[in-house]
Amino acid sequence: MFQPPKGTRDLLPTDMRKLNYLVSVIERVFNNYGYEPLDSPAFEDWELLSAKSAGGEELKKETYYFKDKSDRELGLRYDFTVPTARIVASDPSIPKPFKRYSIGKVWRYDQPQAGRYREFWQADVDIYGTLLPVADAEVIVVAVDCLRKLGFKDFKVRLNDRRVIERKIVNLGIKNPLEVFRCLDKLEKMGEECVIKELREKEIDTGKIEKIMKLVRSKPEEMDELESLVRELKKFGISKEIVVDFSLVRGFDYYTGAVFEISTGGLSIAGGGRYDGLVETYGGKPTPAVGISLGVSRIIDEMEKKKLFKIEDYPARVFVCAVKEEVNAEVVKIVQELRGNGVSADFDTAGRNLRKQLDYVNAKNIPFAIIVGPEELKTKKLVLRDMKSGKEKKLGLEKIVKELQ
Amino acid sequence: MFQPPKGTRDLLPTDMRKLNYLVSVIERVFNNYGYEPLDSPAFEDWELLSAKSAGGEELKKETYYFKDKSDRELGLRYDFTVPTARIVASDPSIPKPFKRYSIGKVWRYDQPQAGRYREFWQADVDIYGTLLPVADAEVIVVAVDCLRKLGFKDFKVRLNDRRVIERKIVNLGIKNPLEVFRCLDKLEKMGEECVIKELREKEIDTGKIEKIMKLVRSKPEEMDELESLVRELKKFGISKEIVVDFSLVRGFDYYTGAVFEISTGGLSIAGGGRYDGLVETYGGKPTPAVGISLGVSRIIDEMEKKKLFKIEDYPARVFVCAVKEEVNAEVVKIVQELRGNGVSADFDTAGRNLRKQLDYVNAKNIPFAIIVGPEELKTKKLVLRDMKSGKEKKLGLEKIVKELQ
Repeated sequence: MFQPPKGTRDLLPTDMRKLNYLVSVIERVFNNYGYEPLDSPAFEDWELLSAKSAGGEELKKETYYFKDKSDRELGLRYDFTVPTARIVASDPSIPKPFKRYSIGKVWRYDQPQAGRYREFWQADVDIYGTLLPVADAEVIVVAVDCLRKLGFKDFKVRLNDRRVIERKIVNLGIKNPLEVFRCLDKLEKMGEECVIKELREKEIDTGKIEKIMKLVRSKPEEMDELESLVRELKKFGISKEIVVDFSLVRGFDYYTGAVFEISTGGLSIAGGGRYDGLVETYGGKPTPAVGISLGVSRIIDEMEKKKLFKIEDYPARVFVCAVKEEVNAEVVKIVQELRGNGVSADFDTAGRNLRKQLDYVNAKNIPFAIIVGPEELKTKKLVLRDMKSGKEKKLGLEKIVKELQ
Repeated sequence: MFQPPKGTRDLLPTDMRKLNYLVSVIERVFNNYGYEPLDSPAFEDWELLSAKSAGGEELKKETYYFKDKSDRELGLRYDFTVPTARIVASDPSIPKPFKRYSIGKVWRYDQPQAGRYREFWQADVDIYGTLLPVADAEVIVVAVDCLRKLGFKDFKVRLNDRRVIERKIVNLGIKNPLEVFRCLDKLEKMGEECVIKELREKEIDTGKIEKIMKLVRSKPEEMDELESLVRELKKFGISKEIVVDFSLVRGFDYYTGAVFEISTGGLSIAGGGRYDGLVETYGGKPTPAVGISLGVSRIIDEMEKKKLFKIEDYPARVFVCAVKEEVNAEVVKIVQELRGNGVSADFDTAGRNLRKQLDYVNAKNIPFAIIVGPEELKTKKLVLRDMKSGKEKKLGLEKIVKELQ
């Protein structure tokens, strides 16, 4: 029997309804904040994906790479930041600031674990064309607003600044701070021991590693670079949620300033930062940029745990049952009348008897059934059954439509 | 400068708004008819994609194939039918009939031409678990309803039956009718000459080729297999749109019965058919199935030609301008108040002067601007400017919110 490829999964109707609900809430917030939708291909030129200051060496290893039938080197996108920066670089006519969102799948050849897949959904907002920290604040606020609208109440906004942490690491006599960042990014995911092991593999000596670990564990006091961001966040009413955290570095090489993550119950569910150099790297005009990405699949898992989903989990509101084959044509008319009036409706397309039709209605969790027989058609009164209570009413179709709308 | 890979394209905001509108209309119809959402990974095991009676030899050549880092052979999905049949085969607990829809991207390594891309959007509905022609009729009706809701008025529903045409082709002494179908499928796309050339390449002799071409050009008279489908379609009110057409075969090898296409102005924009053997091929219980696929990208092109889009093409309804930097904090409050009341709103994140802010409002086609200065804050009357007419009103924020809601 065939299964989905390792690290990927199918989304059956119940999962898809959750995803669709989440996407619709998020998309409404994004539009409400003036972000514009953008889509790019699932794959990009390998040269773009593996360009210096793109995803970083580590990420390159975790990318799906392939050649098309003309030997063109391609890779599946691992984020939305790289494709969007490509678009902004190649089309200088886009008015700035350019506020855009993308919602869709990205792919990484990661080790599959609980809650971690090789194909997953992300929802990003980014602002291109402004250096001001008010833009950093706004992308954080958009994400917070999404989480609130989804029902999350407690969360932390962790902040750091790449320039600060880079300066401190360089001061320790380390020449390639990006290498250290890539290790530190695994702190939450893999734990301290694993990070220390990886730092050792980079041939950083034990004394320096100890100092790095002490640094990331330390409680930051001065942090000039973040002062204005904190001030801007306060204008939006975000202040007690803020935690400045030296251990936060984020994995992508392209970050150049503030980096941030939003977490709930210790789990990071959104993250981003400022990447002022990326558009220029791709041949565009120098264009500062900042963005945040919501981990859609992870948010769904958290919402399940917290029972935040309140969605209708059935295919249709009403199922129109035929008592006998001879009423089939009338059943079709009734179903089309319901559908035409905005009531989702279904009927039997498999020639089953009434009992089996009702079994199906129960199996599918459909809340109402209408029962149609020759007698009902003659009197023009149909039986509307509430499947939960078992209560039945005899009503004309017009009244049933009103009741179900 | 980097471009999207050959045969693919970016969708900028104006295009995305069209796509989002189309998807929302289609999805509402699918839900209204009781179809349930389903998603599968972008790639599948190559063994599945290239299985006999899946897409067909021709399609295999047109598929993106690659290996992951563990040398697993994979391919990008070229349709939704194969992944869905895999899911149905592997999970016998799904109640039947199973009516599901999928909307998303598929990939084919086709020769790019006008309106034809290597990455494109499809929207499918399928019914698994019933042999009855009422199911064939319903999937056609769903597609017709989508097209009507999108504003299409004139269309044809072309029908054929693989069994009829297969019988006729076998009667001509041809042993592999599937091979002939694959050639005939190109009739609309490539023209008669090209089909004849391809049939010659299959070493079918000229006399037989002439008879095949005569057959597909002939007007069908008897067609028992389609009689009941035509009768079912009439129950749904579709009758004068029906054309029975021997030249319609569809390219996929998996079709086993009725095949159909919906076209507008001679252009096919939806197509499907019955494929009763596919689930069994993948190791599942014998499960009859029928479905239809809407060509989303092509429908968008047609809607553009016919000017059927009536959508709001701007990022926000109102832009709140700051006259001076000192009012920035108040501007943020006003913007958040508007957003909180469901009015999409934006403000300057780039520190520009008032004139440049208004230039941006015009460039972005934003219909309203609110102008905020120290005077306006003191009197609590803000200036609301209708950007189209240039008319201005002085109003309190509460009234502005009501006006814009």
